[in-house]
Amino acid sequence: MADGLATKIVLAARPNGKPTDKDFHIEKFPIPQPGAKELLLQTHYLSLDPYMRGRMDDKKSYAPPLQIGDVITGESVAEVIASNIPDFSIGDQVLAYTGWQTHSLSNGKGLRKIDPNVAPVTTRLGVLGMPGFTAYYGLHMIGQPKVGETVVVAAASGAVGSVVGQLAKLAGARSVGIAGGQEKCKFVKDVLRFDAVIDHKSPNFEQELAAACPSGIDVYFENVGGHIWQTVLPLLNKFARIPVCGLISQYNGVPSEDLKNSVAYTMRLVLTKSLTIRGFINSDFLEYYPDFLEMVGNAIKSGEIKYKEDIVEGIEKAPKAFIGMLEGNNFGKLIVKI
Amino acid sequence: MADGLATKIVLAARPNGKPTDKDFHIEKFPIPQPGAKELLLQTHYLSLDPYMRGRMDDKKSYAPPLQIGDVITGESVAEVIASNIPDFSIGDQVLAYTGWQTHSLSNGKGLRKIDPNVAPVTTRLGVLGMPGFTAYYGLHMIGQPKVGETVVVAAASGAVGSVVGQLAKLAGARSVGIAGGQEKCKFVKDVLRFDAVIDHKSPNFEQELAAACPSGIDVYFENVGGHIWQTVLPLLNKFARIPVCGLISQYNGVPSEDLKNSVAYTMRLVLTKSLTIRGFINSDFLEYYPDFLEMVGNAIKSGEIKYKEDIVEGIEKAPKAFIGMLEGNNFGKLIVKI
Repeated sequence: MADGLATKIVLAARPNGKPTDKDFHIEKFPIPQPGAKELLLQTHYLSLDPYMRGRMDDKKSYAPPLQIGDVITGESVAEVIASNIPDFSIGDQVLAYTGWQTHSLSNGKGLRKIDPNVAPVTTRLGVLGMPGFTAYYGLHMIGQPKVGETVVVAAASGAVGSVVGQLAKLAGARSVGIAGGQEKCKFVKDVLRFDAVIDHKSPNFEQELAAACPSGIDVYFENVGGHIWQTVLPLLNKFARIPVCGLISQYNGVPSEDLKNSVAYTMRLVLTKSLTIRGFINSDFLEYYPDFLEMVGNAIKSGEIKYKEDIVEGIEKAPKAFIGMLEGNNFGKLIVKI
Repeated sequence: MADGLATKIVLAARPNGKPTDKDFHIEKFPIPQPGAKELLLQTHYLSLDPYMRGRMDDKKSYAPPLQIGDVITGESVAEVIASNIPDFSIGDQVLAYTGWQTHSLSNGKGLRKIDPNVAPVTTRLGVLGMPGFTAYYGLHMIGQPKVGETVVVAAASGAVGSVVGQLAKLAGARSVGIAGGQEKCKFVKDVLRFDAVIDHKSPNFEQELAAACPSGIDVYFENVGGHIWQTVLPLLNKFARIPVCGLISQYNGVPSEDLKNSVAYTMRLVLTKSLTIRGFINSDFLEYYPDFLEMVGNAIKSGEIKYKEDIVEGIEKAPKAFIGMLEGNNFGKLIVKI
């Protein structure tokens, strides 16, 4: 069994924008023999996920980049076909990060055994794996949909989006999916039973999305970015939450000109650094005003907090002072004394 | 006392970009007489705040826009100089929204009496008013600085920024201010005692900010936007929090070309809609994985959650499947069967 040749797919070149066949290279190699305290794994199912695109670029994202010649990384369902580790037996099915190869050795670390009687093993790469988990926690911990709210998710027929919309419905929210093409849209509506689905390939996508969200959007689960994000943005309600778990439309690169001014650049860092950006106005927190007055009032008295006022005299000076303030000409809290 | 003329400043024209003197008009009017259940207020101090710029445009922001001829809105400290309301006496000092006028009538609603013995009355427009409160809650509820973290705030000598940095220090964080010009920077460093301050007018602003934040930035309190936001963005640490309470650099408008692709547009909506945008990766929530498996596993069994897999056979199909996925060609969780 452990004779013969195995197959692996390695990174042949870094993609320039969209990957092409030439960026991958298929290689044969002898099936390796496990040493002491090692296993031989045979890969049955490889999970392909958008994040892998990031690993192909020569920049740090979540993890170090692949090097040229490296096996393409990825999670898989594999079977133990030879074992020199007591905890693993031949025939065990495991979740592993074998990458894109038919056979690989493992020291057993990081493997999760799968019970194939619970659900088909492939679900551990999808609905019961990292995509489903991403949907579950992104929606509940960040999106926090309330009964009656509108939750929009893009790539709604996909591994993450399909779970997001169904969980949103279970939480009592209205789920609106965005998907590409009639077949996917039909699945989202008829099988997943989202409340509405919009085809982003429609020439009237913008109007159709607005019409499908008559009360606006309270949660937008972001996994696409680009054009779809730009269409969603104006429809967001006050206090909307936007969990960002992916930006697939941007993985093949964004126009480099004026990069820092592009929303794509901001969103990429929101994603890769798990940033939280939250707008607010003081009236959002008005119930805490008395606490504030007490704490800061005391800190002023004790000298722990200093302040500066820029007091301009005469109501007729107000326009000039105001105009100057927008240029940063004031120094301290600008006040007009009348 | 209630004879003679009062002065008010009204919106003469909507500013096109930066406001100019011509957008304001000074008018005289007879000092009004309070009717039954009314007060006459004499304004002593007007607060000028950046948000007012938004009211001058013909679009809804937090509040309806000013109309041409309207008194410019704004908070003020005023004195009751005639009263037909039992709760208010002549000589009472109040916080009011009189706008830019020397005299105005009030029915008493929304007024807050000020005790001038607690602190100078002007502080109720600044450090002990909405700017201070904005700093306090933005920092604590959203920024949540931890001991030893780095908090950066722009407009650091201003009404909000000066309080943010001082509160950050009281919370055990390192505070780095950004201000415009030597005089403001000196005040921030020597009087407010921030740990560091950077002049955004310096030609080496980008490098100096990076050098002042050797461990990156954990909280950026955003009240400026534009160029400063773009400089801060790459320095943000993983899990950074960005409370956004203002975008003064953008209030006079942003270039309209490619507006929707600009980060300025995104940030404006983050601000005016109190949006929360938060990036994440499933490993941020890994401790909840068992809960997820139980809940979603049960929902699959009960039929409440459906899923779809797109299984491609043969490891050699992986590159093509992967390339297609980035175009949205897959339909369901993409898996390669080997």
